[in-house]
Amino acid sequence: MSDYKAFNVELADKVAHVVINRPEKINAMNADFWSEIIDIFRWIEDTDQVRAVVISGAGKHFSSGIDLMMLASLGSKMGPDVGRNAQMLRRKILELQASFNAVDNCSKPVLAAIHGYCLGGAIDLVSACDMRYSTVDAQFSIKEIDIGMAADVGTLQRLPRIIGDGMMRELAYTGRTIDGVEAQRIGLVNRTYDSPEALLDGVMGIAREIAAKSPIAVRGTKEMIRYMRDHRVDDGLEYIATWNAAMLQSVDLRVAMAAHMSKQKPEFAD
Amino acid sequence: MSDYKAFNVELADKVAHVVINRPEKINAMNADFWSEIIDIFRWIEDTDQVRAVVISGAGKHFSSGIDLMMLASLGSKMGPDVGRNAQMLRRKILELQASFNAVDNCSKPVLAAIHGYCLGGAIDLVSACDMRYSTVDAQFSIKEIDIGMAADVGTLQRLPRIIGDGMMRELAYTGRTIDGVEAQRIGLVNRTYDSPEALLDGVMGIAREIAAKSPIAVRGTKEMIRYMRDHRVDDGLEYIATWNAAMLQSVDLRVAMAAHMSKQKPEFAD
Amino acid sequence: MSDYKAFNVELADKVAHVVINRPEKINAMNADFWSEIIDIFRWIEDTDQVRAVVISGAGKHFSSGIDLMMLASLGSKMGPDVGRNAQMLRRKILELQASFNAVDNCSKPVLAAIHGYCLGGAIDLVSACDMRYSTVDAQFSIKEIDIGMAADVGTLQRLPRIIGDGMMRELAYTGRTIDGVEAQRIGLVNRTYDSPEALLDGVMGIAREIAAKSPIAVRGTKEMIRYMRDHRVDDGLEYIATWNAAMLQSVDLRVAMAAHMSKQKPEFAD
Amino acid sequence: MSDYKAFNVELADKVAHVVINRPEKINAMNADFWSEIIDIFRWIEDTDQVRAVVISGAGKHFSSGIDLMMLASLGSKMGPDVGRNAQMLRRKILELQASFNAVDNCSKPVLAAIHGYCLGGAIDLVSACDMRYSTVDAQFSIKEIDIGMAADVGTLQRLPRIIGDGMMRELAYTGRTIDGVEAQRIGLVNRTYDSPEALLDGVMGIAREIAAKSPIAVRGTKEMIRYMRDHRVDDGLEYIATWNAAMLQSVDLRVAMAAHMSKQKPEFAD
Amino acid sequence: MSDYKAFNVELADKVAHVVINRPEKINAMNADFWSEIIDIFRWIEDTDQVRAVVISGAGKHFSSGIDLMMLASLGSKMGPDVGRNAQMLRRKILELQASFNAVDNCSKPVLAAIHGYCLGGAIDLVSACDMRYSTVDAQFSIKEIDIGMAADVGTLQRLPRIIGDGMMRELAYTGRTIDGVEAQRIGLVNRTYDSPEALLDGVMGIAREIAAKSPIAVRGTKEMIRYMRDHRVDDGLEYIATWNAAMLQSVDLRVAMAAHMSKQKPEFAD
Amino acid sequence: MSDYKAFNVELADKVAHVVINRPEKINAMNADFWSEIIDIFRWIEDTDQVRAVVISGAGKHFSSGIDLMMLASLGSKMGPDVGRNAQMLRRKILELQASFNAVDNCSKPVLAAIHGYCLGGAIDLVSACDMRYSTVDAQFSIKEIDIGMAADVGTLQRLPRIIGDGMMRELAYTGRTIDGVEAQRIGLVNRTYDSPEALLDGVMGIAREIAAKSPIAVRGTKEMIRYMRDHRVDDGLEYIATWNAAMLQSVDLRVAMAAHMSKQKPEFAD
Repeated sequence: MSDYKAFNVELADKVAHVVINRPEKINAMNADFWSEIIDIFRWIEDTDQVRAVVISGAGKHFSSGIDLMMLASLGSKMGPDVGRNAQMLRRKILELQASFNAVDNCSKPVLAAIHGYCLGGAIDLVSACDMRYSTVDAQFSIKEIDIGMAADVGTLQRLPRIIGDGMMRELAYTGRTIDGVEAQRIGLVNRTYDSPEALLDGVMGIAREIAAKSPIAVRGTKEMIRYMRDHRVDDGLEYIATWNAAMLQSVDLRVAMAAHMSKQKPEFAD
Repeated sequence: MSDYKAFNVELADKVAHVVINRPEKINAMNADFWSEIIDIFRWIEDTDQVRAVVISGAGKHFSSGIDLMMLASLGSKMGPDVGRNAQMLRRKILELQASFNAVDNCSKPVLAAIHGYCLGGAIDLVSACDMRYSTVDAQFSIKEIDIGMAADVGTLQRLPRIIGDGMMRELAYTGRTIDGVEAQRIGLVNRTYDSPEALLDGVMGIAREIAAKSPIAVRGTKEMIRYMRDHRVDDGLEYIATWNAAMLQSVDLRVAMAAHMSKQKPEFAD
Repeated sequence: MSDYKAFNVELADKVAHVVINRPEKINAMNADFWSEIIDIFRWIEDTDQVRAVVISGAGKHFSSGIDLMMLASLGSKMGPDVGRNAQMLRRKILELQASFNAVDNCSKPVLAAIHGYCLGGAIDLVSACDMRYSTVDAQFSIKEIDIGMAADVGTLQRLPRIIGDGMMRELAYTGRTIDGVEAQRIGLVNRTYDSPEALLDGVMGIAREIAAKSPIAVRGTKEMIRYMRDHRVDDGLEYIATWNAAMLQSVDLRVAMAAHMSKQKPEFAD
Repeated sequence: MSDYKAFNVELADKVAHVVINRPEKINAMNADFWSEIIDIFRWIEDTDQVRAVVISGAGKHFSSGIDLMMLASLGSKMGPDVGRNAQMLRRKILELQASFNAVDNCSKPVLAAIHGYCLGGAIDLVSACDMRYSTVDAQFSIKEIDIGMAADVGTLQRLPRIIGDGMMRELAYTGRTIDGVEAQRIGLVNRTYDSPEALLDGVMGIAREIAAKSPIAVRGTKEMIRYMRDHRVDDGLEYIATWNAAMLQSVDLRVAMAAHMSKQKPEFAD
Repeated sequence: MSDYKAFNVELADKVAHVVINRPEKINAMNADFWSEIIDIFRWIEDTDQVRAVVISGAGKHFSSGIDLMMLASLGSKMGPDVGRNAQMLRRKILELQASFNAVDNCSKPVLAAIHGYCLGGAIDLVSACDMRYSTVDAQFSIKEIDIGMAADVGTLQRLPRIIGDGMMRELAYTGRTIDGVEAQRIGLVNRTYDSPEALLDGVMGIAREIAAKSPIAVRGTKEMIRYMRDHRVDDGLEYIATWNAAMLQSVDLRVAMAAHMSKQKPEFAD
Repeated sequence: MSDYKAFNVELADKVAHVVINRPEKINAMNADFWSEIIDIFRWIEDTDQVRAVVISGAGKHFSSGIDLMMLASLGSKMGPDVGRNAQMLRRKILELQASFNAVDNCSKPVLAAIHGYCLGGAIDLVSACDMRYSTVDAQFSIKEIDIGMAADVGTLQRLPRIIGDGMMRELAYTGRTIDGVEAQRIGLVNRTYDSPEALLDGVMGIAREIAAKSPIAVRGTKEMIRYMRDHRVDDGLEYIATWNAAMLQSVDLRVAMAAHMSKQKPEFAD
């Protein structure tokens, strides 16, 4: 893995562990963060040995969200014409969105392990992950409302599919902070753990379990669930039929069947 | 505010309080109700000082739903031709729907405070609100099934996005009554309160909190959540980028940032 | 009712009870199963006396899913050309999907009563039902991942609308087994019962309750909820207006109103 | 009919003739125009005797489009905050769009008879009509590009469904003027006439022909074509089945059948 | 081929020729027609030797559309309850639609060769074909408007994608008859021929040409064009990528490439 | 501009001229072509001085489509597992599509000037352009059918929106060659020219005309037409209202208005 300024990345047991690594800045998302995350997920995509991904934060918190200095610097780039400023801002927002789209579109499952603060842009990030796990005392807040703006890098688009509509609106309008226990109750996290250590242990265990499955099967499964977020049931049925027309000819199915018959653990190629 | 027959409307602390005011009729929705609610929400839309809305019911109940007299009177308007009756009924239903669309499309958050009965058409109404809160002993029922018809002013369209699909179907097919506790568990209400007084206090508090946020930010946030109910994630991302291209040039962002830096409470213009 | 090999079907109190009847094979879904279920639901569709349906499993389990022998036999049909194999597989998958589409599209409510194993294809089946109920110790698992394939007869398409997105992904990627209690918490089942007997009693009770409602009203309600799974709120509102333009001219509405006035139980024609 | 400032409206032979009546201003669309057209189409909607509509322009031209004074006055309403200006402009544009949506949503066929200039906003207007007819020397131009803006009251949304995509783009990017002959070749108008008199005669004839058909049938036909502009074929098939479930019970079908058998002209009630 | 009452079906040179064969009744579509066409297209689907289909009419005309006796018989099935009649009619219309859906969904290209009358239901039929060819003096009319109903077996859903929107509306509202020359100009037919004999010769030639192409390639091409009628460009791109992931592994590609290199005509397996 | 192997790129009068420059290979699309076109359009996107783009081919032809050597090399990359091959092929196709998506998504109008052969992949390319112009004797063919595959880089997705559905299918199933005259008749090209020189002169003239318009207005217009290809009319209206909320605050509108009043040619900033 290359050297990253805002991250630390490790690969073990077919699981890539992506750590946001600016603990002295509460892992605020600066310019390095936004560009490096694209490189990291391109590497994940291209590296067959990576079969699952875990994202966590170094230090006491997951992340406090976008670096306010970075946001402020946008203001300095504005010129006198409102129209041209709008074009520039629109392009800039689409660029930032692309960073989290890279996470959302990753063909391998991405698990977020969250402790401490998970604020503003950090909610946008974890909304783009497959599953979320946290400590009981983690703190979640859709903070953007408090800096006078509508969240624009994914929370308002992806979170309504994850938590209930009624609670979604309350959290987005008020910016109210919720802890891990409430987060689990509304479906934001799948499970809570008592400590950051237990959290990381638990999430790594789930990731390793996924990494031992057929990568052909996991990829197809993820593609279908991603597809259903935005499509009709009948289109989804047609799509999986077309997809599996090729994939059911894979050896993985035979490997799995043979292992099943002989009650052994199957080994799948990357 | 004008004089309404079926409602009482007050504005304080930038929160409009809309009270269904026919307690002697269990706040049944008569012809006045259906036309006045459109006028009220037009006024809310046009009045910049209104930044959040609370709907509640006067007396012992929120509302028993559509006035059956009104429904019966539709029958008397039918002529001998099934086709022309159908055209008339279709137009009439679209008109009734327009009354609750006015609530749904309101650009300011609408909170329902529910106690006592919330039956039939009242479920349609609260489904069109942003968030719902109730007393623990409130009683909810999709009553339409018991008068031999499929609900047609919004429950069947909006509620599936709010509560789970499995429970949605059970409640709609059986008309079973649930209380506030179960309503919270399935996501129909965000929180329950022990008494009508505590309920109104609590909901007004949340409404005032929202009213203190940047109206530009709240409006954008609501528009995006509303948009996502019916659109794809990629369309939603493009839409917020276009929206914020203008809105991030607003002073509210600078006001909020300045307040954040100086640790003060920001004051936003209407 | 005809003689079925994989099922036992009974009709009482306007409720059709469809029992998967291969207990010695843990009710595995063989070729008979897939073709007979289509016939059964065509009969249900065409029989006005059937107003609700309950599906359960004979013996100790609901069903262990698709019969692996059947899956294996697909392999033997493959020829040397990948393209022609793909066409054949695609057609075969669409055929299998049609069996559960028959359940999903049934115009009468279908309730699943689940005890013991509910694995792989059985999850696909219950995802196509309206509501699901189980014993507390029922065992659910999206087993397909363990035989090296993405589920392709409906689980990945229908379940995301029923349970939360985050938990959906965990269960689909890991194949983790959950019991009735967890199933209820995430919305997979509406309620749990302590024993198979209590389960069947309870579910039959709910089915009979639905069967006593106006069939015009139940059918319209189901059509609308099914429609909303894949359509926009505004389209749904227009659709119900068009639908009710005819249905509100039905006698059922008058029967229900009259019963309501006289505080009697209405009797609706089939 | 009421007195209108920007229009002259007449009703004869069940056809409403709506004439834009500011010939001294080349029928430029001023504030009166935008509000009165809504009233006119509400009257058309509510008046059963109106079964078809013809729109034309008084004097030498159909219309030169939006009144530039009106556009300029928008500028004077802008304040210092870009965000609030954007909110105001967005609301204003949606208001203007509503005027032409009233034409598009009219349940009765609307025919445009075009001679002379048809520029800018006039293209937006005729795009919202059902059919367009013109003199051979009429002049069409998507003029908005020349005043530095993207057309925003309907041309860019509706015209791509009417003319070919390639020519659509050329006309929209260049603002090039085309005559009636080219307009017919690309599908913008259905037919051309040699003089304004022949045009009006011809279009009135078509309108009267439509007005003599069953209004139930015409309305259903229009609703379906309108629906298909934005929906899938399978949804459209389901929608017409639901629609005709009521409409085929109308007497109009029997009237038409009887007339057909007896080779007489049917007379349909309004 | 089986014996059909309303059709004559022949297979030669890998082209199935389906002839509507009730010349004494102007090939009116009776009950036999509607059920047999489903059987015929199931046979076409299942028979690998059929690679293209031509539909034509025996005698002097293509078809005068639905048999009015059949339509009239629907009336006699109606009971006293408008709601139950509506359910029956809706089901019946969906059934009739299914007959032409079988044509539309056929995975092999279907060419219509049209001479003489092509009225009402016949327009619905040819709208479901891939391509249409006619004699210069063929007569087309959307006749449904003249029997007091909106067309409900496909014309209003499929034809707007084929001819221009403006002409579509004129033809549907007026029922105006157009000949082959105008039909070609608006895109309804691809080409016209001077006589029925030249027509059949020409269309058979095109069909045989298609039948000589790779069936894998033709099927994929048709599936993609069909898909695009109802889907977005980005979805279409993803779908063809998934489709071709299997199909590019077919031998047909190698056969075609080898033939291309050696300048010979390729021979593809069925 | 950088040095390209497969292209020659020039910028003059705010128009970028992109010439496919492998005349000795009939401008066949090799690996360089597919990667360089992405770089070129990124440069076009980022360079404010470019306001319109013209694509043409060097030598006697526009392009013969994808380089068959490149296609053949895909075969050599295939391994023994059908499933993994399918994943590789799917990814590869998506990559190739990305090259033409770059053309389609370009925010500036792209005009294709076509002479000689325009075959296979070249049709995919010009389908992604805004407008197409050709010599009268240009030759167009959807050649993919003849190499045994369904076109997968955009023709089948984009062309149905450009030419009529009936002719689309004929050309795609048969691979029939059409000339410029027929191409214009079906809407594939906007205009034909007698010689390659007249063609380039004419197209450059149109491009320069577009380049002189307000770039804010052109960009908005293109974005809206692109949007409408895949969205509903009501969504499109809301989108332009949101877009113009910012853009109408631009100086370009005032510049254009002032020029209009003073009858002078406006000058817009890049």
